[in-house]
Amino acid sequence: MTKKPITETTEHVPKAVVARLSLYLRQLQLVEQSGQATISSTQLGQMLSITDAQVRKDFGYFGQFGYPGIGYRCHELIHAIREILGTNEVRPVALIGCGNMGMALLGYRGFRKQGFEVKLAFDVDQDLVGREVGTILIHDFKQITELLPQFGIRLAILAVPAQTAQSVAEHLVFSGILGILNFAPVKLNLPASVSIVDVDLAVQLEQLSFGVVKVESSL
Amino acid sequence: MTKKPITETTEHVPKAVVARLSLYLRQLQLVEQSGQATISSTQLGQMLSITDAQVRKDFGYFGQFGYPGIGYRCHELIHAIREILGTNEVRPVALIGCGNMGMALLGYRGFRKQGFEVKLAFDVDQDLVGREVGTILIHDFKQITELLPQFGIRLAILAVPAQTAQSVAEHLVFSGILGILNFAPVKLNLPASVSIVDVDLAVQLEQLSFGVVKVESSL
Repeated sequence: MTKKPITETTEHVPKAVVARLSLYLRQLQLVEQSGQATISSTQLGQMLSITDAQVRKDFGYFGQFGYPGIGYRCHELIHAIREILGTNEVRPVALIGCGNMGMALLGYRGFRKQGFEVKLAFDVDQDLVGREVGTILIHDFKQITELLPQFGIRLAILAVPAQTAQSVAEHLVFSGILGILNFAPVKLNLPASVSIVDVDLAVQLEQLSFGVVKVESSL
Repeated sequence: MTKKPITETTEHVPKAVVARLSLYLRQLQLVEQSGQATISSTQLGQMLSITDAQVRKDFGYFGQFGYPGIGYRCHELIHAIREILGTNEVRPVALIGCGNMGMALLGYRGFRKQGFEVKLAFDVDQDLVGREVGTILIHDFKQITELLPQFGIRLAILAVPAQTAQSVAEHLVFSGILGILNFAPVKLNLPASVSIVDVDLAVQLEQLSFGVVKVESSL
């Protein structure tokens, strides 16, 4: 296993390759849970309907992780992917906006499982500020420039109304945020150094719809 | 362009291929919006960092959509994919559970854009039943066996607490639901004919985290 230094490798990695890292990670976690210690690129590819050449090419951006005659060691590859994704240690996340979506996300347990922890929550509504949700205190949005750097937070979940999203996002960038998970239905316009992922839940409904069409057509 | 009859084709289509259909669809919608009328499998693949062979193999499950010397006609391929996914006509969806997540989803505009409409909402809480959210009336959960078939609803979004999710899901299946978008943090155990997609928002945070690691390592 030979890893490339991060600065050398991650410059030109396509988004789609990074997206597939999450797929590989989830699949490897399942394989490891089932008690299987190693896996070939062919086998991993088959599980995800990806050619083995594509699997090797994807990992090739980051180094050489396989062993001749063995394949990948699941535990090692999981660790390597999480290192690439920066989730081997728990990453603190800030939640901005504690309306319905924000409150739902405060209770969402899936983040912790993959190495994320909502550490701070913010809102402008003074009726919400000071309230505790689980173990999280809702802070006044005015405090972000002070609190985000203090907690070393680089990732934010944006769950504010569409009309305020752009201006709130600019405040976040000013406070050191480098990545925004955007639930607001607007395209944010921010410096290129800031990563943005727009949540598109319709993708998942489409997957379901396909299954429904299949069953309906066989009825 | 030659489509295979649905019953012949969709039997053995891997989940990962269906997931990529959504990726192709989003990309083709962008390409078409930019004014480009045709696209080659190589070009489409490059945009998504997928080999052209993989692109052709994926579409090959459903028929022959390209033209020699032209490639794919964007408009036609978008229509074909939406037909495969069953979203050329608006698909009605039921929302089960009107807590924070449910309320947030009632206001989520991304569904409509891709061909889904939340038609009915349900809750067990009598304080919520009868309330109108936008144009949607919240119904008593007891009415699902009557209302879902009446509205021909096959897709449901499950946003109920973990401890009730399984029993609610069983009621949904009994009422004719064939696909469930599951926000509850439990593995549902349902007949194989029912499609389930578990929402995993951590995947999207991982994509962001990668961007953050990249910037941090260059600081």
